[in-house]
Amino acid sequence: MQLLDGKATSDQLKKEIAEKVASIKQAGGKVPHLAAVLVGSDGGSMTYVNNKVLACKACGFDSTLLTYPATITEDELLAVVDKLNKDPAIDGFIVQVPLPKHINEDKVTEAIDYRKDVDGFHPENLGRMMLGLPTYISATPNGIMELLKRNKIDTAGKHCVVVGRSNIVGTPMSILMSRNTNPGNCTVTMVHSRTTNMKEICASADILIVAIGKPMFITADMVKPGAVVIDVGTTRVPDASDPKGFKLRGDVDFDNVKDKCSWITPVPGGVGPMTIASLMQNTLLAIELKNR
Amino acid sequence: MQLLDGKATSDQLKKEIAEKVASIKQAGGKVPHLAAVLVGSDGGSMTYVNNKVLACKACGFDSTLLTYPATITEDELLAVVDKLNKDPAIDGFIVQVPLPKHINEDKVTEAIDYRKDVDGFHPENLGRMMLGLPTYISATPNGIMELLKRNKIDTAGKHCVVVGRSNIVGTPMSILMSRNTNPGNCTVTMVHSRTTNMKEICASADILIVAIGKPMFITADMVKPGAVVIDVGTTRVPDASDPKGFKLRGDVDFDNVKDKCSWITPVPGGVGPMTIASLMQNTLLAIELKNR
Repeated sequence: MQLLDGKATSDQLKKEIAEKVASIKQAGGKVPHLAAVLVGSDGGSMTYVNNKVLACKACGFDSTLLTYPATITEDELLAVVDKLNKDPAIDGFIVQVPLPKHINEDKVTEAIDYRKDVDGFHPENLGRMMLGLPTYISATPNGIMELLKRNKIDTAGKHCVVVGRSNIVGTPMSILMSRNTNPGNCTVTMVHSRTTNMKEICASADILIVAIGKPMFITADMVKPGAVVIDVGTTRVPDASDPKGFKLRGDVDFDNVKDKCSWITPVPGGVGPMTIASLMQNTLLAIELKNR
Repeated sequence: MQLLDGKATSDQLKKEIAEKVASIKQAGGKVPHLAAVLVGSDGGSMTYVNNKVLACKACGFDSTLLTYPATITEDELLAVVDKLNKDPAIDGFIVQVPLPKHINEDKVTEAIDYRKDVDGFHPENLGRMMLGLPTYISATPNGIMELLKRNKIDTAGKHCVVVGRSNIVGTPMSILMSRNTNPGNCTVTMVHSRTTNMKEICASADILIVAIGKPMFITADMVKPGAVVIDVGTTRVPDASDPKGFKLRGDVDFDNVKDKCSWITPVPGGVGPMTIASLMQNTLLAIELKNR
């Protein structure tokens, strides 16, 4: 088994981005500027956003963090989005989800100018991804593609099984892996809660990508010997022995699966860091697309 | 074997649309108006567009056919698109593909206001389909969903294999069949030219949807007994015995497959008429979305 080390790969990626930013700066060009909007004080969201701001620093980007109380109205948040859309200093921005229940997330996502939607959640960007047009691919699927590419994992003609059909991970992942690209060119099966023979299908995967948020869902008997296993799950499981009071758990029973597969992502340190590095890539791309 | 009769289903659908249009008219509302843009004089394209205009008549829609020589420049065609985008009389319009080689089809598609893109080819509409938001679903996939629904074919938990990964049929089809909808909720596998064990995967399908444009590609040994077979192929194969000089052939070896499956679409008379009826549905929807 070899570890698909997302931490190391993302560090390398951020280093390369920082080098590009340094040469943009030297040439007198605009440094990428990412804004992040955080609503409320959810612990997970605060951690994610802080990590994104730290990644901006590591890449030499400018960054702006805008925080609002959970009581912000939908109209007020839409006004924030509108202002960011129009601000020429901001190249890309994200609105951290989940949002409070009184705010329609779809409406907020659609209000973002797709040219600044570096999260790649806007319908226009999802459609452009489907069509293979220049776009921001959602950070997690994009990070997984990068992880496969940089670790030279052969995907063409392989059977890729994607577990989970979410808009943010499962669905775009299934499309990306099926495209005539490298990585890609897989025969892709997407399975979900209504799939009847989950175990059998997972066990037939050469590449197994799991994104359902159920800790330990994938057991060793669901993994084909030699498979590549990508674990997108990051559930906080209470753990009194941990100073934070919880441990991050993936969707895969890592300890029992690891000796069966050829490659596997750890949790933490696998897909998570790649997601953030991928957001940085998209923000750099925002400058490049603007200059086309 | 039962025939999935697209002709009969589409006639019924058009009848229902005509009834809705009659009551819109009676209430003093706006009658849907579809414009079709035809460039050049490709025989297939002319037939398709004429059939669309005839379907408008059958549904009680207004229709406008705009024809241009194959020598029209890209800029001139983009000006036509812009004019249709801005014309309040036109609720939806299509630009018949393929376009001459000197015109960038992606550019033309992106120039269409997605709110008038009743073909459902615009990236925004593809993305909205992925997200389950109100949209125009591309006519062929939408027609297939309608055919399954109206013939009460049970899809939940079934294994659906989609052959072909095109932007217009295979890819959107694979997404639609995987959604938490009815029809839908299938475990979906998409196969294509790089798939290694095509025969085995097709033979495991409860629902087999074929869209690769290769006549007789699906032979009886690739079909599971009792499967539902949807044939999207419509290739013109030269045939001296036919007054037109050709016969339409599907991707499925109908004669040898038909006795093995539970349901099958004929070619012609299967998916083709549903595609046109589905375009009519989208045009009616254009009025409904505007009135929301």
